[in-house]
Amino acid sequence: MRILGIDCGAERTGYGLIESDGRSHQLVTAGFIATSPRDALELRLLGIARGLREIIQVHVPAQAAVEEVFYSQNVKTALKLSHVRGVALLTIAEAGLSLGEYSPLAIKTSVVGYGRAEKQQVKVMVHSLLQIRDEIESEDACDAIAVAICHATHVSSSLRMRAVQ
Amino acid sequence: MRILGIDCGAERTGYGLIESDGRSHQLVTAGFIATSPRDALELRLLGIARGLREIIQVHVPAQAAVEEVFYSQNVKTALKLSHVRGVALLTIAEAGLSLGEYSPLAIKTSVVGYGRAEKQQVKVMVHSLLQIRDEIESEDACDAIAVAICHATHVSSSLRMRAVQ
Repeated sequence: MRILGIDCGAERTGYGLIESDGRSHQLVTAGFIATSPRDALELRLLGIARGLREIIQVHVPAQAAVEEVFYSQNVKTALKLSHVRGVALLTIAEAGLSLGEYSPLAIKTSVVGYGRAEKQQVKVMVHSLLQIRDEIESEDACDAIAVAICHATHVSSSLRMRAVQ
Repeated sequence: MRILGIDCGAERTGYGLIESDGRSHQLVTAGFIATSPRDALELRLLGIARGLREIIQVHVPAQAAVEEVFYSQNVKTALKLSHVRGVALLTIAEAGLSLGEYSPLAIKTSVVGYGRAEKQQVKVMVHSLLQIRDEIESEDACDAIAVAICHATHVSSSLRMRAVQ
């Protein structure tokens, strides 16, 4: 199962593609789409949409996963993030991918085993689970992979639950 | 100058196209794109994007105008609205339209002459300014036309200011 994880952000939208059977995960590709703060928001959204469409076209994921929106920190930031998230959800729907949405708590619990984990711990665990060494420097890319891993684990355990019933 | 006004909403996104020289305005078309609350957000965003793209393709506006996002009422509603707004801004950028963004206060002041006007007053003034009679029932469509009129007035007065200088 090939999964695209997306970590939305107006300045940097991280992406991470993994191939997974729900227990072991292989990295396909990861990175981020950067936009210029000097550009108007609509142009930044255009850059993000084009970037995501290209990744989907080249790597053909079957499923996608994104973080749920949260607004604990700053409403203005959350509103801008929601614009980006709207565009990400649109590109996912355009490609006909099924979508999983997870809270930051669920993602961290799934990857680190602890819902309040720091970004650095997520990074270490993402590398460990993918059995790679310090390859992914970008935190946005790591966060995107973490969402993808969370989705892989979730889908796989849902399937096992159904098999047991 | 042909202007597309958009009134973003997850359930109904209003649109209004006017032809304007900044002083007199003619209605080209208006309506709304409805989505089903039973559909997942990404499918609703897909419906809104397709609807807006079709309107732009058929009626070929030169400019677009949308309301600024505000969050005085309910953060959750504002976050959902921002997803739709992100998609609307994307379709505007894809079509290469120049964009104007206005506060609810600026729109109402421009159309009614009073920033705290009720929806019904906006509706009456939109009909009066377009010299039409009770043709547009939808409040979402009326609000979209109001944004377009606000933009037309704004662009026109900016041009006159430049001519005077």
